[in-house]
Amino acid sequence: MCGIVGVIGRDDATQVLLNGLEKLEYRGYDSAGVYVNDQNGHDYLVKRVGRIKNLEAALTPEIQGSIGIGHTRWATNGAPTEANAHPHVSNDGRFYLVHNGVVTNAQTLRQEYLTDVELHSSTDTEVVVQLIALFAQQDGLDAKAALRKTLKLVEGSYAFSLVDRNQPDALYVAKNKSPLLIGKGDGFNVVASDALAMLDVTNQFIEVKDEEIVTLTKTDITIENLAGTQIQRNAFTVKMDAADLGKGTYPFYMLKEVDEQPVVMHRLAEKYLDAKGNVVLPADLLDALKQADRLYIVAAGTSYHAGLVGKPLFEQLAGIPTEVVLGSEFGYHMPMLSKKPMFIFLSQSGETADSRQVLVKTKALGYPALTITNVGTSTLAREADFALELYAGPEIAVASTKAYTAQIGVEALVAKALGTAFNQPAAKQFDVAHQLALAADGQQALIDQKEHLHDLAKDMFATTRNAFFIGRGTDYFVSLEAALKLKEISYVQAEGFAAGELKHGTIALIEDNTPVVAFITDPVTAEHTRANGQEVQARGGKVLHIAAHDLAKDGDELVIGDIDPLLSPLVTIVAGQLLAYYTSYDRGYDVDKPRNLAKSVTVE
Amino acid sequence: MCGIVGVIGRDDATQVLLNGLEKLEYRGYDSAGVYVNDQNGHDYLVKRVGRIKNLEAALTPEIQGSIGIGHTRWATNGAPTEANAHPHVSNDGRFYLVHNGVVTNAQTLRQEYLTDVELHSSTDTEVVVQLIALFAQQDGLDAKAALRKTLKLVEGSYAFSLVDRNQPDALYVAKNKSPLLIGKGDGFNVVASDALAMLDVTNQFIEVKDEEIVTLTKTDITIENLAGTQIQRNAFTVKMDAADLGKGTYPFYMLKEVDEQPVVMHRLAEKYLDAKGNVVLPADLLDALKQADRLYIVAAGTSYHAGLVGKPLFEQLAGIPTEVVLGSEFGYHMPMLSKKPMFIFLSQSGETADSRQVLVKTKALGYPALTITNVGTSTLAREADFALELYAGPEIAVASTKAYTAQIGVEALVAKALGTAFNQPAAKQFDVAHQLALAADGQQALIDQKEHLHDLAKDMFATTRNAFFIGRGTDYFVSLEAALKLKEISYVQAEGFAAGELKHGTIALIEDNTPVVAFITDPVTAEHTRANGQEVQARGGKVLHIAAHDLAKDGDELVIGDIDPLLSPLVTIVAGQLLAYYTSYDRGYDVDKPRNLAKSVTVE
Repeated sequence: MCGIVGVIGRDDATQVLLNGLEKLEYRGYDSAGVYVNDQNGHDYLVKRVGRIKNLEAALTPEIQGSIGIGHTRWATNGAPTEANAHPHVSNDGRFYLVHNGVVTNAQTLRQEYLTDVELHSSTDTEVVVQLIALFAQQDGLDAKAALRKTLKLVEGSYAFSLVDRNQPDALYVAKNKSPLLIGKGDGFNVVASDALAMLDVTNQFIEVKDEEIVTLTKTDITIENLAGTQIQRNAFTVKMDAADLGKGTYPFYMLKEVDEQPVVMHRLAEKYLDAKGNVVLPADLLDALKQADRLYIVAAGTSYHAGLVGKPLFEQLAGIPTEVVLGSEFGYHMPMLSKKPMFIFLSQSGETADSRQVLVKTKALGYPALTITNVGTSTLAREADFALELYAGPEIAVASTKAYTAQIGVEALVAKALGTAFNQPAAKQFDVAHQLALAADGQQALIDQKEHLHDLAKDMFATTRNAFFIGRGTDYFVSLEAALKLKEISYVQAEGFAAGELKHGTIALIEDNTPVVAFITDPVTAEHTRANGQEVQARGGKVLHIAAHDLAKDGDELVIGDIDPLLSPLVTIVAGQLLAYYTSYDRGYDVDKPRNLAKSVTVE
Repeated sequence: MCGIVGVIGRDDATQVLLNGLEKLEYRGYDSAGVYVNDQNGHDYLVKRVGRIKNLEAALTPEIQGSIGIGHTRWATNGAPTEANAHPHVSNDGRFYLVHNGVVTNAQTLRQEYLTDVELHSSTDTEVVVQLIALFAQQDGLDAKAALRKTLKLVEGSYAFSLVDRNQPDALYVAKNKSPLLIGKGDGFNVVASDALAMLDVTNQFIEVKDEEIVTLTKTDITIENLAGTQIQRNAFTVKMDAADLGKGTYPFYMLKEVDEQPVVMHRLAEKYLDAKGNVVLPADLLDALKQADRLYIVAAGTSYHAGLVGKPLFEQLAGIPTEVVLGSEFGYHMPMLSKKPMFIFLSQSGETADSRQVLVKTKALGYPALTITNVGTSTLAREADFALELYAGPEIAVASTKAYTAQIGVEALVAKALGTAFNQPAAKQFDVAHQLALAADGQQALIDQKEHLHDLAKDMFATTRNAFFIGRGTDYFVSLEAALKLKEISYVQAEGFAAGELKHGTIALIEDNTPVVAFITDPVTAEHTRANGQEVQARGGKVLHIAAHDLAKDGDELVIGDIDPLLSPLVTIVAGQLLAYYTSYDRGYDVDKPRNLAKSVTVE
């Protein structure tokens, strides 16, 4: 999982690559590197471990070129060292390659073709670039032909960008499963894993499909399949509001993005509701949903937690049975499906590889799919039959906040629309506009209590090594997400639990002052969850109660505003997000860029 | 969650209570106490924090009586102190009460009736005994009448046993939701939470149903409902092989129980298969299963993990869609059910309160239920339409081992029987007798490698504060269970993960030498799981590979014998159990009786 960029036809190639890599840092930041060539006999390869800023510091003024490729890495094979950083170069010094993905048969290829070749890294990518060089030399092939021959052997996922030092007048790119977009300029062309990386220089993009090779020159873009047949494809325009991208006076993007959530709730109402408060969905999407006998929500990580909240929404408002599954499990061990399933893919980036492999399989089976994503131009959005946007604006912090609440908001809107189409009484009674407004108010009330939440974070988590979050019903789902937030950015070993399950084993971990956060917003089980809190307290644990206004008792440390229990995670998670934020902040971590993580997970 | 005992008509009442409490220690051991009365003017109340042995040490020779009650506690309300230990006594010194369960309206009752009464503990139980005394005094009621009046006000769960010091010629007991059995003797009678506690003195037992009051004298047993109407009920005989109960030369029961698993596999084949190798189930059970359109497996903790393994068994062998749900969540937030659901309750003890509340609700809805349990006389077995036994023999260690593998074995047998009834080709090909034999062989091979597993446990977990277990498919399910074992007895904060999910956030917790155990027994995803292991290693994590023979690679630390991937948890979990055992053992913990836990969880 990594980000790649490439450019040809710009005298400021180094700066274009660097700007692009900075935008791609969400895809990983274990190491970074660039190769540039001035097409006049000078070229430079620079790689550094760690963030883009380390690479930037190493780029002295003479490092200029008019063609180049760049890479930011999230380590899958081999440690994050300089040797393992991209671009990789063939032993003859001729070919430079960057790669996003995992070549699964690299060891086999190495044993078959490269036993005489000395390798300098432990990456699958170096195997590929050495193969290209081998075929070019051995068979007298040019760069494109050598690349094509190599691609026919390679298994797995990749987005490649290749430069031939002997003929630096073209950039060769290819993809399979990993994302890649071509950007069309005036007298130059670019390539990147994400449009975001190149929005500074163009807004015209061309899609690349699996198993295609594209040759970019200053002026031309040529797309071919692996058999060598040329393919015509038009460019499309990407619009993005550049103002959304600054973090302004916030110390970290995450805090800004937490604060934006009430605005996102209002924006969803504005985008999806008509003047009468009816949810407006494309008619063909609504038809497809109506024909389904069961919904399957496919997701991973935080999106999976948002999906869990969707199940009771769809079942109770629309009366349609709903299952929520992990993409990485579902794709390889598909359970028995209903007769007319419909798939809903939840992914903030729309690039999650674990979900995409499911989409490929469900499409092959002929089942309809809807993607709900924050990036309308993403792979999952393009490849599904239907796509709905989250309208959360760019989310830069690696730990997702506003995209999670937006996902729940869109699920509620779709469930309401479907329930209305089915004339379900529960849907009629569920005033989604009012609920989104209540959510925004409840979120804002917590955002306005930042100092109190900072104090609670200090009190509960300042030095702890572990923590638990418990609740029942939707409070259970939000417990999972609150625990993940704390894990991701503060490295506290936190676990979310169905409150009733804790005593079935895990309560053995409760010691004096072990922090336990109890969410209590569900009237049916509030007393049971409180009893589970008492079991923890009886063993020395320290319980922080976060209760709905109507269920609150004296001594509850945090009370949230009223909202339908089906949607309480929209509000309670803001407390979880802020507790995690302040814990990470107080420990001195880089809140926006936690170790080991990447924002968009584009490997399985 | 606690255990209670009571006796009347035995001169050695103290010893009878003590023996019974020792057998009930699996239900909790935060504190223990007895009250005995010699019916001749002498009585004694002794309570101690901690294990039964602390209480035993405090019982000097003069503490004798012919009627008495005893209690071992798992703290739900209030810390495990002597003040909170049972029996509780009314302020006038007249009534002594032991209680298993949770009175949910204790605070309300206290505010309504007891504002003038000083309480000496923070338990719900003391509220009840003070209420009994209040009504006896205020309304001039005898013990039974005061108890009845109190029970009409009490909400929640309880098994009570009460002695009136002024008239110590009877023992009064009552139950609601919590388990309780009357034992019938010759010239004496006893009462206990579990037949096990009284098998030393009788094998004749009488069931008590919810909201009944029973009066025991030396010679008589009188059952009444809350309205005072007498009820006739016959005794039944409980047979248990006393030889199963010794731990012999093993340092801990857990190790003995791990070692017994191959025998249990063979015993299941012997009990459930006929001479031709066909699974024999009661005809009416098979009919009920055949009529269902969807199975719901309801469980908690380790049983839930066994249930997860059941889903692909039932779906692939019998072609029936199956859902696995947590009792504590399902009972209060029931999802949309299919038209003809059938419920399968998995519970080692058959007393799990979280599952029982679901059974009460599904019975009320008219749906059929099968209980699979190790205790054929348990509440869940008695109350379900059908019951199947695990035949694992008594499991004494709190951490379940052989009951878990037996649960999976019985699921496989039932799935095979149902698939055969449906003429499913997959069921025909699945030779369950052969697979159980392979499981026994694979288990035995690991049991024979104890020293190697001890070394691996030292190498991986000697000083770690956290750990991860990863896998895909059934390897994911066994990861959850292996993590729970390590948590329960060694207090390491372990988590089981779907291998593909780790990178969606939790990988942030990987540091140098963080232990990660990877289960690799599924051919479809073996390479993916290995790739996830490499992602962990790239960040400094230390990976222990446990691989199936056919999928093993050089360097894998542990290789298991061949078995169908559907049943691989039967073997792989033995590695997980032994890793957990040796980690706990090396840290010097009481392996069989981990802190904070009870074997049977009889509160919600």
